[in-house]
Amino acid sequence: MTDQQCRRRYGSLRNMVDRKLAGMIRVTDPRALNEACAFVLQSGGKRIRSTLVMLACEAVGGSARQALEAGSAIEIMHNFTLVHDDIMDNATTRRGQPTVHIRWDLSNALLAGDTLLGLAYHTLQRTRSKRTTTLLDLFTQGLLEVCQGQGLDHEFERQLDITVSNYFRMIRKKTGRLISLATEMGGVIGGASPRQRAALRTFGSHLGRAFQLQDDLLDVVADKQEFGKTIGGDIAEGKRTYLLLTAAERAQGAERDVITGVLQHGARGTDGPDPHTIAAVTAIYERTGVLRDARTLIERDTRAALRALDRLSRNRGTAMLRWLSNTLLHRSS
Amino acid sequence: MTDQQCRRRYGSLRNMVDRKLAGMIRVTDPRALNEACAFVLQSGGKRIRSTLVMLACEAVGGSARQALEAGSAIEIMHNFTLVHDDIMDNATTRRGQPTVHIRWDLSNALLAGDTLLGLAYHTLQRTRSKRTTTLLDLFTQGLLEVCQGQGLDHEFERQLDITVSNYFRMIRKKTGRLISLATEMGGVIGGASPRQRAALRTFGSHLGRAFQLQDDLLDVVADKQEFGKTIGGDIAEGKRTYLLLTAAERAQGAERDVITGVLQHGARGTDGPDPHTIAAVTAIYERTGVLRDARTLIERDTRAALRALDRLSRNRGTAMLRWLSNTLLHRSS
Repeated sequence: MTDQQCRRRYGSLRNMVDRKLAGMIRVTDPRALNEACAFVLQSGGKRIRSTLVMLACEAVGGSARQALEAGSAIEIMHNFTLVHDDIMDNATTRRGQPTVHIRWDLSNALLAGDTLLGLAYHTLQRTRSKRTTTLLDLFTQGLLEVCQGQGLDHEFERQLDITVSNYFRMIRKKTGRLISLATEMGGVIGGASPRQRAALRTFGSHLGRAFQLQDDLLDVVADKQEFGKTIGGDIAEGKRTYLLLTAAERAQGAERDVITGVLQHGARGTDGPDPHTIAAVTAIYERTGVLRDARTLIERDTRAALRALDRLSRNRGTAMLRWLSNTLLHRSS
Repeated sequence: MTDQQCRRRYGSLRNMVDRKLAGMIRVTDPRALNEACAFVLQSGGKRIRSTLVMLACEAVGGSARQALEAGSAIEIMHNFTLVHDDIMDNATTRRGQPTVHIRWDLSNALLAGDTLLGLAYHTLQRTRSKRTTTLLDLFTQGLLEVCQGQGLDHEFERQLDITVSNYFRMIRKKTGRLISLATEMGGVIGGASPRQRAALRTFGSHLGRAFQLQDDLLDVVADKQEFGKTIGGDIAEGKRTYLLLTAAERAQGAERDVITGVLQHGARGTDGPDPHTIAAVTAIYERTGVLRDARTLIERDTRAALRALDRLSRNRGTAMLRWLSNTLLHRSS
């Protein structure tokens, strides 16, 4: 498949999901709550997780259509986590729009998250498969792990001595699990053998980690226009990323003081991010080889992800999964 | 069965649930989150909903033990709603203890609620039954309705023209649904016929409404010592109850102004509930016949609930359901 064919197919799968999600909410009483849910379900996003479910299903001989409900369910679960995370982080914008708790209020955001989680189960339960029980077990395990990952993230916020290995444990649960859940569930729907299912799960784990590392990296190296977020936003917030924690392990003397300061209270002036400190931290990342090492890890995880795919037959599903991996991990925004 | 036998059996079912819930959490990293979940699961309560699941199962020929997982799942779902409701209402205590968001923080309370919901599904999925799919469908529908009910409640908080019929619609979803879900799920696990299942659902709906009305009534007529809450707490908060909304429809002149004032900003002085206004409102309830009518409705719903049970065979399960209904609806705390 050519890049253009892959891009077109990705767009068509994404549209299937968008349509499915758009048709899900009837805005009746209670109006605010249901409007908030509709807003979240229609606010776009790349629909990566749902596409992964559909392609993983195809990769083991199923059809993308068979996995549309499960794919939509994972996408809705992902959106549930975003709504609740935004409350916890007190985030004011997402995808260029006000967050739910800003646009409505805390109660409606809390309830919209809860409702979305209910809708995710509702949608998953509509999957026509002999393996619905397995799917539901996986889904619930995934939900519990994502909550644990978010709990770890929250605990780490207040700690200064988080190691990089703690960080990896946290993102495996918080970000990675939903990606490997997507690929594994797709496999289950498509009737994967245990070996195929394990391969898809391994693929998802590596992809998930590479994806998160890439996200961390983009915070300092992204094209500001394309990225749609403030460059250095993670530094401004003192967010525990691979970059910051690795720098904390490596920096000495005055550089160490800069990193510790950011871990303690971010890098904010009276009117927003402090560009001076952000530039200093970026220079430390550069000098201590943190950016180079992040790129190496991303490459390594991407290769490991693609190697896992080698254990599956070559078909349109696996071709698309390869294309998607490469596209995601060489993205600039 | 004598009252004492019923009481003993209720205690033994309640202990089964308590043990099940206590064994559910291993407190590992993230510590705060898991401690919060354990705290909620072990903070007692009457375990009414789980007992209803087990007794409904028994009422149609199943065993209470068969329904322990589903009963625990509903209890956990109930606790999930309490944790999130307490955030929304900014409640500081529950069952004489600080609420989760007070004892820990908003993030941990939010995540503890989410985790509990995951655990509820996890537990329900452990039910050994041919009808797990039906159970999960019911459970998810129930969850979505409870969220809608809570959303309505939140919208009503800011409105002055809520009718009593709006109130009934709200509590049917917010409180009643979980009770009728409990009785219906118990029936499904026990292998109820469609007719038996409908009877159990009807029983639960009436019981749920009577239970909520009783809760509203106890706010002003309870024995303060036994009740464990402040008498007139609902009035102090301007909470939309059957009593307040019915009084709003009936009161005239100066009495109407008092009720409207409470609907607008509750009845609080600088240091807590304002006893003068609470006494005035209680007198209006008395004078306009609101208390008498609440008692009549509770009686009527209780009789309707018991009539629904007449459609089932007489056995230990139905005997216990009768006893529990009478006990709940003649409680003074």
